[in-house]
Amino acid sequence: MEAMEVQTVVQVTPLGSRSAELDEPEDLEKRAFELRQQLEAVEEQLGKREAGSFEEYFATSYTRLLRDRLPWLVGLLLLQSSAALIMGTFENLLDKHLVIAFFVPMIVGTGGNAGNQPGVMTTRALSRGTFDSHKLHKLVRRETLLALVTGTLLAVLAFLRVLLQYPSKIKEAGAISIAVFLMVNLAIFIGVAFSIVIDRTGADPANGAAPLLTTVADLVGITLLCAVAALLLSA
Amino acid sequence: MEAMEVQTVVQVTPLGSRSAELDEPEDLEKRAFELRQQLEAVEEQLGKREAGSFEEYFATSYTRLLRDRLPWLVGLLLLQSSAALIMGTFENLLDKHLVIAFFVPMIVGTGGNAGNQPGVMTTRALSRGTFDSHKLHKLVRRETLLALVTGTLLAVLAFLRVLLQYPSKIKEAGAISIAVFLMVNLAIFIGVAFSIVIDRTGADPANGAAPLLTTVADLVGITLLCAVAALLLSA
Repeated sequence: MEAMEVQTVVQVTPLGSRSAELDEPEDLEKRAFELRQQLEAVEEQLGKREAGSFEEYFATSYTRLLRDRLPWLVGLLLLQSSAALIMGTFENLLDKHLVIAFFVPMIVGTGGNAGNQPGVMTTRALSRGTFDSHKLHKLVRRETLLALVTGTLLAVLAFLRVLLQYPSKIKEAGAISIAVFLMVNLAIFIGVAFSIVIDRTGADPANGAAPLLTTVADLVGITLLCAVAALLLSA
Repeated sequence: MEAMEVQTVVQVTPLGSRSAELDEPEDLEKRAFELRQQLEAVEEQLGKREAGSFEEYFATSYTRLLRDRLPWLVGLLLLQSSAALIMGTFENLLDKHLVIAFFVPMIVGTGGNAGNQPGVMTTRALSRGTFDSHKLHKLVRRETLLALVTGTLLAVLAFLRVLLQYPSKIKEAGAISIAVFLMVNLAIFIGVAFSIVIDRTGADPANGAAPLLTTVADLVGITLLCAVAALLLSA
Protein backbone atom coordinates (compact mmCIF):
# COMPACT_ATOMS: atom_id res chain seq x y z
CA MET A 1 0.00 0.00 0.00
CA GLU A 2 2.84 2.33 0.87
CA ALA A 3 4.40 1.69 -2.53
CA MET A 4 1.18 2.85 -4.14
CA GLU A 5 1.31 6.11 -2.21
CA VAL A 6 4.84 6.73 -3.38
CA GLN A 7 3.89 6.05 -6.97
CA THR A 8 1.24 8.75 -6.97
CA VAL A 9 4.02 11.29 -6.50
CA VAL A 10 5.79 10.15 -9.67
CA GLN A 11 5.04 12.69 -12.37
CA VAL A 12 3.97 10.98 -15.57
CA THR A 13 5.26 12.84 -18.60
CA PRO A 14 3.18 12.08 -21.70
CA LEU A 15 5.45 10.96 -24.53
CA GLY A 16 4.49 13.73 -26.92
CA SER A 17 5.27 16.60 -24.60
CA ARG A 18 8.57 15.34 -23.25
CA SER A 19 11.44 17.79 -23.21
CA ALA A 20 14.58 17.39 -25.32
CA GLU A 21 16.76 16.38 -22.38
CA LEU A 22 14.66 13.21 -21.98
CA ASP A 23 16.75 11.74 -24.80
CA GLU A 24 19.69 11.42 -22.41
CA PRO A 25 20.25 7.75 -21.45
CA GLU A 26 19.82 8.51 -17.73
CA ASP A 27 16.47 10.22 -18.27
CA LEU A 28 15.29 7.45 -20.57
CA GLU A 29 16.31 4.83 -18.01
CA LYS A 30 14.39 6.72 -15.33
CA ARG A 31 11.36 7.06 -17.56
CA ALA A 32 11.48 3.34 -18.48
CA PHE A 33 11.76 2.45 -14.79
CA GLU A 34 8.71 4.58 -13.93
CA LEU A 35 6.68 3.05 -16.74
CA ARG A 36 7.70 -0.47 -15.71
CA GLN A 37 6.62 0.28 -12.13
CA GLN A 38 3.23 1.55 -13.26
CA LEU A 39 2.79 -1.38 -15.64
CA GLU A 40 3.60 -3.86 -12.87
CA ALA A 41 1.05 -2.27 -10.54
CA VAL A 42 -1.66 -2.44 -13.20
CA GLU A 43 -0.68 -5.99 -14.14
CA GLU A 44 -0.81 -7.01 -10.50
CA GLN A 45 -4.42 -5.84 -10.33
CA LEU A 46 -5.07 -7.75 -13.54
CA GLY A 47 -2.97 -10.73 -12.40
CA LYS A 48 -5.67 -13.17 -11.45
CA ARG A 49 -7.56 -12.77 -14.68
CA GLU A 50 -4.64 -12.89 -17.10
CA ALA A 51 -3.86 -15.62 -19.63
CA GLY A 52 -1.40 -18.21 -18.31
CA SER A 53 -2.42 -17.72 -14.68
CA PHE A 54 -3.09 -20.61 -12.29
CA GLU A 55 -6.78 -19.67 -12.37
CA GLU A 56 -6.82 -20.16 -16.12
CA TYR A 57 -4.91 -23.44 -15.81
CA PHE A 58 -7.25 -24.76 -13.11
CA ALA A 59 -10.23 -23.80 -15.26
CA THR A 60 -8.84 -25.76 -18.23
CA SER A 61 -10.24 -29.29 -18.59
CA TYR A 62 -8.02 -32.38 -18.55
CA THR A 63 -9.02 -33.27 -22.10
CA ARG A 64 -8.09 -29.76 -23.26
CA LEU A 65 -4.65 -29.99 -21.56
CA LEU A 66 -4.06 -33.45 -23.01
CA ARG A 67 -5.09 -32.25 -26.47
CA ASP A 68 -2.61 -29.37 -26.12
CA ARG A 69 0.29 -31.47 -24.87
CA LEU A 70 -0.01 -34.97 -26.33
CA PRO A 71 0.39 -34.23 -30.06
CA TRP A 72 3.80 -32.65 -29.41
CA LEU A 73 4.91 -35.46 -27.12
CA VAL A 74 3.78 -38.15 -29.57
CA GLY A 75 5.36 -36.41 -32.58
CA LEU A 76 8.63 -35.76 -30.78
CA LEU A 77 8.81 -39.31 -29.39
CA LEU A 78 8.43 -40.73 -32.89
CA LEU A 79 11.00 -38.28 -34.28
CA GLN A 80 13.42 -39.05 -31.44
CA SER A 81 13.00 -42.76 -32.07
CA SER A 82 14.77 -42.12 -35.41
CA ALA A 83 17.92 -42.23 -33.29
CA ALA A 84 17.29 -45.99 -33.06
CA LEU A 85 17.07 -46.18 -36.87
CA ILE A 86 20.38 -44.32 -37.24
CA MET A 87 22.12 -46.39 -34.57
CA GLY A 88 20.54 -49.55 -36.00
CA THR A 89 22.19 -48.75 -39.34
CA PHE A 90 25.55 -48.79 -37.54
CA GLU A 91 24.67 -51.91 -35.51
CA ASN A 92 27.83 -53.83 -36.49
CA LEU A 93 30.05 -50.89 -35.60
CA LEU A 94 28.34 -50.26 -32.25
CA ASP A 95 28.32 -53.96 -31.44
CA LYS A 96 32.10 -54.06 -31.88
CA HIS A 97 32.73 -50.65 -30.27
CA LEU A 98 30.04 -50.35 -27.60
CA VAL A 99 31.91 -47.45 -25.99
CA ILE A 100 30.74 -45.23 -28.89
CA ALA A 101 27.12 -45.77 -27.80
CA PHE A 102 28.04 -44.91 -24.20
CA PHE A 103 29.13 -41.43 -25.23
CA VAL A 104 26.07 -40.61 -27.38
CA PRO A 105 24.39 -38.68 -24.50
CA MET A 106 27.56 -36.62 -23.95
CA ILE A 107 27.88 -35.62 -27.64
CA VAL A 108 24.19 -34.82 -27.93
CA GLY A 109 24.12 -32.82 -24.68
CA THR A 110 27.25 -30.84 -25.49
CA GLY A 111 25.79 -29.90 -28.87
CA GLY A 112 22.63 -28.65 -27.21
CA ASN A 113 24.49 -26.57 -24.64
CA ALA A 114 26.97 -25.14 -27.15
CA GLY A 115 24.15 -24.06 -29.47
CA ASN A 116 21.99 -22.70 -26.68
CA GLN A 117 24.42 -20.01 -25.48
CA PRO A 118 24.78 -18.03 -28.75
CA GLY A 119 21.12 -18.79 -29.49
CA VAL A 120 19.90 -17.11 -26.30
CA MET A 121 22.34 -14.24 -26.89
CA THR A 122 21.04 -13.70 -30.44
CA THR A 123 17.39 -13.86 -29.35
CA ARG A 124 18.00 -11.27 -26.62
CA ALA A 125 19.94 -8.97 -28.92
CA LEU A 126 17.29 -9.22 -31.65
CA SER A 127 14.64 -8.12 -29.16
CA ARG A 128 16.76 -5.10 -28.20
CA GLY A 129 17.70 -3.40 -31.41
CA THR A 130 17.87 -3.56 -35.15
CA PHE A 131 19.61 -6.25 -37.18
CA ASP A 132 21.15 -5.95 -40.64
CA SER A 133 23.47 -7.93 -42.91
CA HIS A 134 26.51 -6.04 -41.59
CA LYS A 135 25.76 -7.15 -38.03
CA LEU A 136 24.98 -10.67 -39.24
CA HIS A 137 28.41 -10.95 -40.89
CA LYS A 138 30.13 -9.64 -37.79
CA LEU A 139 28.13 -12.04 -35.60
CA VAL A 140 28.98 -15.03 -37.80
CA ARG A 141 32.68 -14.05 -37.88
CA ARG A 142 32.85 -13.82 -34.10
CA GLU A 143 30.90 -17.02 -33.50
CA THR A 144 33.03 -18.93 -36.04
CA LEU A 145 36.17 -18.07 -34.12
CA LEU A 146 34.50 -18.84 -30.79
CA ALA A 147 33.21 -22.17 -32.12
CA LEU A 148 36.67 -23.19 -33.35
CA VAL A 149 38.27 -22.42 -29.97
CA THR A 150 35.41 -23.90 -27.91
CA GLY A 151 35.18 -26.97 -30.15
CA THR A 152 38.93 -27.63 -29.94
CA LEU A 153 39.04 -27.34 -26.15
CA LEU A 154 35.98 -29.55 -25.65
CA ALA A 155 37.31 -32.10 -28.15
CA VAL A 156 40.58 -32.41 -26.19
CA LEU A 157 38.59 -32.72 -22.97
CA ALA A 158 36.33 -35.41 -24.47
CA PHE A 159 39.38 -37.34 -25.73
CA LEU A 160 40.92 -37.37 -22.24
CA ARG A 161 37.58 -38.24 -20.65
CA VAL A 162 37.11 -41.34 -22.83
CA LEU A 163 40.68 -42.50 -22.16
CA LEU A 164 40.16 -42.00 -18.42
CA GLN A 165 37.39 -44.63 -18.48
CA TYR A 166 38.79 -46.80 -21.31
CA PRO A 167 42.59 -46.28 -21.44
CA SER A 168 43.08 -48.73 -24.33
CA LYS A 169 40.41 -47.30 -26.66
CA ILE A 170 42.47 -44.57 -28.33
CA LYS A 171 40.75 -44.87 -31.72
CA GLU A 172 37.29 -44.67 -30.15
CA ALA A 173 38.40 -41.66 -28.09
CA GLY A 174 39.64 -40.03 -31.30
CA ALA A 175 36.33 -40.59 -33.08
CA ILE A 176 34.32 -39.23 -30.13
CA SER A 177 36.68 -36.25 -29.89
CA ILE A 178 36.30 -35.36 -33.59
CA ALA A 179 32.53 -35.72 -33.32
CA VAL A 180 32.51 -33.28 -30.36
CA PHE A 181 34.50 -30.74 -32.39
CA LEU A 182 32.17 -30.99 -35.40
CA MET A 183 29.05 -30.97 -33.21
CA VAL A 184 30.05 -27.80 -31.30
CA ASN A 185 30.79 -25.94 -34.55
CA LEU A 186 27.53 -27.05 -36.12
CA ALA A 187 25.46 -26.41 -32.99
CA ILE A 188 26.57 -22.80 -32.60
CA PHE A 189 25.36 -22.01 -36.11
CA ILE A 190 22.14 -23.95 -35.69
CA GLY A 191 21.54 -21.88 -32.52
CA VAL A 192 22.14 -18.51 -34.20
CA ALA A 193 20.25 -19.41 -37.40
CA PHE A 194 17.30 -20.77 -35.43
CA SER A 195 17.04 -17.58 -33.34
CA ILE A 196 16.98 -15.43 -36.47
CA VAL A 197 14.31 -17.60 -38.14
CA ILE A 198 12.17 -17.56 -34.98
CA ASP A 199 12.53 -13.77 -34.77
CA ARG A 200 11.62 -13.28 -38.45
CA THR A 201 8.58 -15.55 -38.35
CA GLY A 202 7.44 -14.26 -34.96
CA ALA A 203 6.83 -17.79 -33.63
CA ASP A 204 6.89 -18.46 -29.88
CA PRO A 205 10.02 -20.62 -29.45
CA ALA A 206 8.67 -22.13 -26.21
CA ASN A 207 5.76 -23.65 -28.08
CA GLY A 208 7.42 -26.67 -29.61
CA ALA A 209 9.92 -25.09 -31.99
CA ALA A 210 12.69 -25.35 -29.38
CA PRO A 211 12.18 -29.07 -28.59
CA LEU A 212 11.87 -29.72 -32.32
CA LEU A 213 15.25 -28.02 -32.91
CA THR A 214 16.81 -29.95 -30.03
CA THR A 215 15.54 -33.23 -31.45
CA VAL A 216 16.81 -32.51 -34.96
CA ALA A 217 20.19 -31.39 -33.57
CA ASP A 218 20.34 -34.60 -31.49
CA LEU A 219 19.78 -36.73 -34.59
CA VAL A 220 22.46 -34.78 -36.49
CA GLY A 221 24.87 -35.34 -33.58
CA ILE A 222 24.21 -39.09 -33.44
CA THR A 223 24.66 -39.39 -37.22
CA LEU A 224 27.91 -37.40 -37.01
CA LEU A 225 29.30 -39.59 -34.24
CA CYS A 226 28.40 -42.86 -35.96
CA ALA A 227 29.73 -41.67 -39.34
CA VAL A 228 33.06 -40.46 -37.90
CA ALA A 229 33.40 -43.67 -35.88
CA ALA A 230 32.65 -45.78 -38.96
CA LEU A 231 35.32 -43.92 -40.95
CA LEU A 232 37.97 -44.19 -38.24
CA LEU A 233 37.26 -47.63 -36.80
CA SER A 234 36.52 -49.63 -39.94
CA ALA A 235 39.94 -48.75 -41.37
CA MET B 1 7.08 8.61 -36.92
CA GLU B 2 3.35 8.46 -37.50
CA ALA B 3 3.01 6.02 -34.62
CA MET B 4 4.65 8.56 -32.34
CA GLU B 5 2.11 11.20 -33.35
CA VAL B 6 -0.73 8.87 -32.50
CA GLN B 7 0.79 8.07 -29.13
CA THR B 8 0.84 11.71 -28.10
CA VAL B 9 -2.95 11.64 -28.19
CA VAL B 10 -3.11 8.86 -25.61
CA GLN B 11 -4.05 10.43 -22.30
CA VAL B 12 -1.78 9.20 -19.53
CA THR B 13 -3.67 8.80 -16.28
CA PRO B 14 -1.33 8.93 -13.28
CA LEU B 15 -1.92 5.89 -11.06
CA GLY B 16 -2.81 7.87 -7.96
CA SER B 17 -5.58 9.90 -9.51
CA ARG B 18 -7.30 7.11 -11.41
CA SER B 19 -11.05 6.79 -10.99
CA ALA B 20 -12.74 3.83 -9.32
CA GLU B 21 -14.00 2.36 -12.59
CA LEU B 22 -10.39 1.75 -13.62
CA ASP B 23 -10.55 -1.43 -11.54
CA GLU B 24 -12.72 -3.01 -14.22
CA PRO B 25 -10.73 -5.61 -16.19
CA GLU B 26 -11.34 -3.79 -19.50
CA ASP B 27 -10.02 -0.50 -18.15
CA LEU B 28 -7.03 -2.22 -16.56
CA GLU B 29 -6.27 -3.98 -19.85
CA LYS B 30 -6.45 -0.66 -21.67
CA ARG B 31 -4.23 1.03 -19.11
CA ALA B 32 -1.70 -1.84 -19.26
CA PHE B 33 -1.70 -1.62 -23.06
CA GLU B 34 -1.03 2.13 -22.96
CA LEU B 35 1.78 1.69 -20.46
CA ARG B 36 3.33 -1.11 -22.53
CA GLN B 37 3.20 1.12 -25.63
CA GLN B 38 4.93 3.97 -23.83
CA LEU B 39 7.50 1.61 -22.30
CA GLU B 40 8.28 0.13 -25.72
CA ALA B 41 8.79 3.59 -27.23
CA VAL B 42 11.17 4.58 -24.44
CA GLU B 43 12.97 1.24 -24.63
CA GLU B 44 13.35 1.64 -28.38
CA GLN B 45 15.15 4.94 -27.82
CA LEU B 46 17.28 3.20 -25.21
CA GLY B 47 17.64 0.07 -27.37
CA LYS B 48 21.14 0.50 -28.65
CA ARG B 49 22.60 1.15 -25.23
CA GLU B 50 20.82 -1.61 -23.33
CA ALA B 51 22.38 -4.71 -21.78
CA GLY B 52 22.17 -7.76 -24.04
CA SER B 53 22.16 -5.71 -27.25
CA PHE B 54 24.33 -6.55 -30.27
CA GLU B 55 26.37 -3.43 -29.50
CA GLU B 56 27.17 -4.80 -26.07
CA TYR B 57 27.97 -8.24 -27.51
CA PHE B 58 30.25 -6.78 -30.20
CA ALA B 59 32.02 -4.72 -27.54
CA THR B 60 32.68 -7.83 -25.42
CA SER B 61 36.12 -9.39 -25.93
CA TYR B 62 36.60 -12.98 -27.10
CA THR B 63 38.34 -13.91 -23.86
CA ARG B 64 35.41 -12.49 -21.86
CA LEU B 65 32.88 -14.49 -23.94
CA LEU B 66 34.96 -17.65 -23.60
CA ARG B 67 35.30 -17.12 -19.86
CA ASP B 68 31.49 -16.75 -19.65
CA ARG B 69 30.67 -19.77 -21.77
CA LEU B 70 33.42 -22.36 -21.34
CA PRO B 71 33.06 -23.19 -17.62
CA TRP B 72 29.42 -24.24 -18.19
CA LEU B 73 30.26 -26.25 -21.29
CA VAL B 74 33.19 -28.00 -19.59
CA GLY B 75 31.21 -28.75 -16.42
CA LEU B 76 28.17 -30.01 -18.32
CA LEU B 77 30.29 -32.14 -20.67
CA LEU B 78 31.92 -33.84 -17.69
CA LEU B 79 28.55 -34.30 -15.97
CA GLN B 80 27.00 -35.66 -19.17
CA SER B 81 29.88 -38.08 -19.57
CA SER B 82 28.53 -39.78 -16.42
CA ALA B 83 26.08 -41.39 -18.83
CA ALA B 84 29.06 -43.45 -20.04
CA LEU B 85 29.77 -44.51 -16.45
CA ILE B 86 26.14 -45.59 -15.94
CA MET B 87 25.97 -47.41 -19.27
CA GLY B 88 29.42 -48.90 -18.63
CA THR B 89 28.07 -50.42 -15.41
CA PHE B 90 25.44 -52.20 -17.51
CA GLU B 91 27.96 -53.15 -20.22
CA ASN B 92 27.08 -56.88 -20.21
CA LEU B 93 23.37 -56.13 -20.47
CA LEU B 94 23.80 -53.59 -23.29
CA ASP B 95 26.23 -55.87 -25.11
CA LYS B 96 23.59 -58.61 -25.15
CA HIS B 97 20.65 -56.26 -25.78
CA LEU B 98 22.10 -53.48 -27.93
CA VAL B 99 18.59 -52.32 -28.85
CA ILE B 100 18.26 -50.84 -25.33
CA ALA B 101 21.15 -48.45 -26.11
CA PHE B 102 19.49 -47.48 -29.40
CA PHE B 103 16.46 -46.13 -27.54
CA VAL B 104 18.37 -44.12 -24.92
CA PRO B 105 17.96 -40.85 -26.92
CA MET B 106 14.20 -41.43 -27.22
CA ILE B 107 13.71 -42.01 -23.47
CA VAL B 108 15.89 -39.06 -22.54
CA GLY B 109 14.22 -36.73 -25.07
CA THR B 110 10.69 -37.73 -24.08
CA GLY B 111 11.51 -37.07 -20.43
CA GLY B 112 12.77 -33.60 -21.30
CA ASN B 113 9.71 -32.72 -23.36
CA ALA B 114 7.23 -34.14 -20.85
CA GLY B 115 8.82 -32.16 -18.02
CA ASN B 116 9.15 -28.98 -20.04
CA GLN B 117 5.42 -28.47 -20.69
CA PRO B 118 4.19 -28.28 -17.06
CA GLY B 119 7.45 -26.54 -16.15
CA VAL B 120 6.83 -23.66 -18.57
CA MET B 121 3.18 -23.53 -17.48
CA THR B 122 4.16 -23.30 -13.79
CA THR B 123 6.80 -20.63 -14.45
CA ARG B 124 4.29 -18.50 -16.38
CA ALA B 125 1.58 -18.91 -13.76
CA LEU B 126 3.98 -18.06 -10.92
CA SER B 127 4.87 -14.81 -12.68
CA ARG B 128 1.18 -13.92 -12.97
CA GLY B 129 -0.28 -14.32 -9.53
CA THR B 130 0.13 -15.60 -6.05
CA PHE B 131 0.92 -19.18 -5.08
CA ASP B 132 0.00 -21.01 -1.88
CA SER B 133 -0.08 -24.56 -0.56
CA HIS B 134 -3.73 -24.97 -1.63
CA LYS B 135 -2.84 -24.20 -5.24
CA LEU B 136 0.25 -26.41 -5.00
CA HIS B 137 -1.86 -29.40 -3.90
CA LYS B 138 -4.36 -28.78 -6.68
CA LEU B 139 -1.53 -28.44 -9.21
CA VAL B 140 0.13 -31.66 -8.06
CA ARG B 141 -3.21 -33.53 -8.13
CA ARG B 142 -3.92 -32.41 -11.69
CA GLU B 143 -0.41 -33.09 -12.94
CA THR B 144 -0.37 -36.55 -11.32
CA LEU B 145 -3.46 -37.55 -13.26
CA LEU B 146 -2.10 -35.99 -16.46
CA ALA B 147 1.25 -37.75 -15.99
CA LEU B 148 -0.45 -41.14 -15.51
CA VAL B 149 -2.52 -40.74 -18.68
CA THR B 150 0.32 -39.23 -20.74
CA GLY B 151 2.83 -41.79 -19.46
CA THR B 152 0.53 -44.72 -20.28
CA LEU B 153 -0.18 -43.52 -23.81
CA LEU B 154 3.48 -42.81 -24.57
CA ALA B 155 4.52 -46.16 -23.06
CA VAL B 156 2.13 -48.02 -25.39
CA LEU B 157 3.42 -45.97 -28.32
CA ALA B 158 7.06 -46.70 -27.39
CA PHE B 159 6.28 -50.43 -27.09
CA LEU B 160 4.80 -50.50 -30.60
CA ARG B 161 7.63 -48.37 -31.98
CA VAL B 162 10.32 -50.78 -30.72
CA LEU B 163 8.42 -53.80 -32.10
CA LEU B 164 8.05 -52.05 -35.46
CA GLN B 165 11.84 -51.99 -35.84
CA TYR B 166 12.61 -55.20 -33.91
CA PRO B 167 9.52 -57.46 -34.08
CA SER B 168 11.14 -60.27 -32.08
CA LYS B 169 12.39 -58.15 -29.16
CA ILE B 170 9.24 -58.16 -27.02
CA LYS B 171 11.08 -58.16 -23.68
CA GLU B 172 13.28 -55.24 -24.72
CA ALA B 173 10.20 -53.37 -25.95
CA GLY B 174 8.56 -54.01 -22.58
CA ALA B 175 11.55 -52.65 -20.66
CA ILE B 176 11.75 -49.53 -22.85
CA SER B 177 8.00 -49.03 -22.51
CA ILE B 178 8.09 -49.23 -18.70
CA ALA B 179 11.05 -46.83 -18.63
CA VAL B 180 9.07 -44.33 -20.75
CA PHE B 181 6.14 -44.52 -18.32
CA LEU B 182 8.35 -43.97 -15.26
CA MET B 183 10.35 -41.23 -16.98
CA VAL B 184 7.26 -39.22 -18.00
CA ASN B 185 5.84 -39.36 -14.47
CA LEU B 186 9.14 -38.36 -12.92
CA ALA B 187 9.85 -35.63 -15.49
CA ILE B 188 6.55 -33.83 -14.96
CA PHE B 189 7.31 -33.47 -11.25
CA ILE B 190 10.91 -32.48 -11.85
CA GLY B 191 9.58 -29.76 -14.19
CA VAL B 192 7.06 -28.36 -11.70
CA ALA B 193 9.41 -28.60 -8.70
CA PHE B 194 12.25 -26.97 -10.63
CA SER B 195 10.03 -24.04 -11.69
CA ILE B 196 8.98 -23.43 -8.09
CA VAL B 197 12.59 -23.56 -6.82
CA ILE B 198 13.75 -21.18 -9.58
CA ASP B 199 10.90 -18.80 -8.73
CA ARG B 200 11.65 -18.89 -4.99
CA THR B 201 15.39 -18.35 -5.39
CA GLY B 202 14.94 -15.74 -8.13
CA ALA B 203 17.63 -17.35 -10.31
CA ASP B 204 17.62 -16.79 -14.07
CA PRO B 205 16.76 -20.25 -15.46
CA ALA B 206 18.40 -19.46 -18.82
CA ASN B 207 21.76 -19.06 -17.14
CA GLY B 208 22.78 -22.66 -16.71
CA ALA B 209 20.16 -23.96 -14.29
CA ALA B 210 18.02 -25.26 -17.18
CA PRO B 211 20.82 -27.23 -18.92
CA LEU B 212 21.90 -28.51 -15.51
CA LEU B 213 18.37 -29.80 -14.85
CA THR B 214 18.21 -31.36 -18.32
CA THR B 215 21.51 -33.13 -17.75
CA VAL B 216 20.50 -34.49 -14.35
CA ALA B 217 17.12 -35.62 -15.75
CA ASP B 218 18.95 -37.32 -18.65
CA LEU B 219 21.14 -39.27 -16.24
CA VAL B 220 18.09 -40.29 -14.19
CA GLY B 221 16.39 -41.48 -17.39
CA ILE B 222 19.39 -43.55 -18.51
CA THR B 223 19.70 -45.12 -15.06
CA LEU B 224 15.96 -45.91 -15.05
CA LEU B 225 16.12 -47.54 -18.48
CA CYS B 226 19.18 -49.65 -17.65
CA ALA B 227 17.79 -50.70 -14.26
CA VAL B 228 14.39 -51.72 -15.66
CA ALA B 229 16.09 -53.55 -18.54
CA ALA B 230 18.41 -55.37 -16.12
CA LEU B 231 15.42 -56.47 -14.01
CA LEU B 232 13.36 -57.68 -16.97
CA LEU B 233 16.05 -59.12 -19.23
CA SER B 234 18.30 -60.88 -16.72
CA ALA B 235 15.37 -62.98 -15.52
